[in-house]
Amino acid sequence: VTVVDDLRAAVADIDYVQESVFERIPEKREVSEAIGALIRDDAVVGSSSSGIPASAFTEHAPRRQRFLIAHPVNPPHLVPLVELVPAPWTDPAILPWLRAMMQAVGQAPIVVNREIEGFILNRLQGVLLKEAWALFEEGYASAADIDLCVSQGLGLRWSFMGPFATIELNAPGGIADYCARYTGFYKRLQATPAGPEVYDDANIASILKEWGKQATPEQLASLTRWRDQRLAALAAHKKDQLAPPGA
Amino acid sequence: VTVVDDLRAAVADIDYVQESVFERIPEKREVSEAIGALIRDDAVVGSSSSGIPASAFTEHAPRRQRFLIAHPVNPPHLVPLVELVPAPWTDPAILPWLRAMMQAVGQAPIVVNREIEGFILNRLQGVLLKEAWALFEEGYASAADIDLCVSQGLGLRWSFMGPFATIELNAPGGIADYCARYTGFYKRLQATPAGPEVYDDANIASILKEWGKQATPEQLASLTRWRDQRLAALAAHKKDQLAPPGA
Repeated sequence: VTVVDDLRAAVADIDYVQESVFERIPEKREVSEAIGALIRDDAVVGSSSSGIPASAFTEHAPRRQRFLIAHPVNPPHLVPLVELVPAPWTDPAILPWLRAMMQAVGQAPIVVNREIEGFILNRLQGVLLKEAWALFEEGYASAADIDLCVSQGLGLRWSFMGPFATIELNAPGGIADYCARYTGFYKRLQATPAGPEVYDDANIASILKEWGKQATPEQLASLTRWRDQRLAALAAHKKDQLAPPGA
Repeated sequence: VTVVDDLRAAVADIDYVQESVFERIPEKREVSEAIGALIRDDAVVGSSSSGIPASAFTEHAPRRQRFLIAHPVNPPHLVPLVELVPAPWTDPAILPWLRAMMQAVGQAPIVVNREIEGFILNRLQGVLLKEAWALFEEGYASAADIDLCVSQGLGLRWSFMGPFATIELNAPGGIADYCARYTGFYKRLQATPAGPEVYDDANIASILKEWGKQATPEQLASLTRWRDQRLAALAAHKKDQLAPPGA
């Protein structure tokens, strides 16, 4: 890693730029326009944003067709996923190139075909959080037990199989059989989805009350080190495992 | 394991009965009424149901206050979670006893305080599936990439931390700080939630088309063996890992 304090020196003759300034539109816009003026015509600029689409800050950037979102996941050195999200003006030829480049360095890129707020990851996380918060708010379970439901249940399969691969094995005849058996059930469960009101102040206060006193910065740092050790150990574990038959 | 072909011999002098007949109300009702007539007054009967509440089939069972749901997760010998869900007439003293008993044999029981269709696990799984299906239907990503978003992203943390523990470390100041930063974002994402219509036949057909040809029974059996090997290896891996600081 080489640190430079001059933007031209950082980006002028570079194939790929990962822009990671604060996730706020004015800062993203300013730095994108400065980068666009300095890069080669064939450079690619991926922006670390977890929810803001590239069109919100690259419209007036020079070489705007070379910009897209490349959203890593926290902590990015231990979670392989990267979401690649083009703006409407992004050159589509960038996607296969960047996907292959990310794979070559050990990341797991996915392509989000067009812009949507929250992309895929935070939309999936968001609906699960919303249901978790609704079940807590209605008194069905404690936050601790809802956490266990994921960490000792749903999350185990999901650490190596996505939701589609999971349901393929949850009915004797595969995905079509699963749909025939269970979509009626899911439709009933979701007939009246919890709304965004689960994030009201009273529910947040109840969750914080059960969770216990606010962790100190030192406790959060210690928990974060533990999480990262666990993720590193999980990555090492996964590396030794067999791929699925037929993959 | 001792196999008997007589219900009285199976349940008459037993502390705990795990009833696992087909998940259909008439069969559940018939066997629950037969079991209730044979058990000791202090026995407990947990029913393996992934969504049907106990009140739907134990109302007229003898000793109905001794029945509740004890929902294991597929595959039950490799996923520790068990959802304990009392009916309105279940003796509340059973819950701490059964929770401790399940923990003593290595399971991870949680208590669902009152009945709700789908309990906690399938409600959380259901909302994530619904969003995944909606994102696929709208053309935002392939089913394969949505799967990667979970298996290489969200599912890694969730294999050892629940959603509340996860968000505590996703903002510098913990859960309260996370709520202050991100609930506005989530409210926007969820302002117009996908509806149950994502499970219509056309979307199921599109998913199956991308997924490729229907797996044969042999292929599904082979994939299931692979999944179970992965879950067993993950369980062995998790056993060797450190608990979080302060836990």
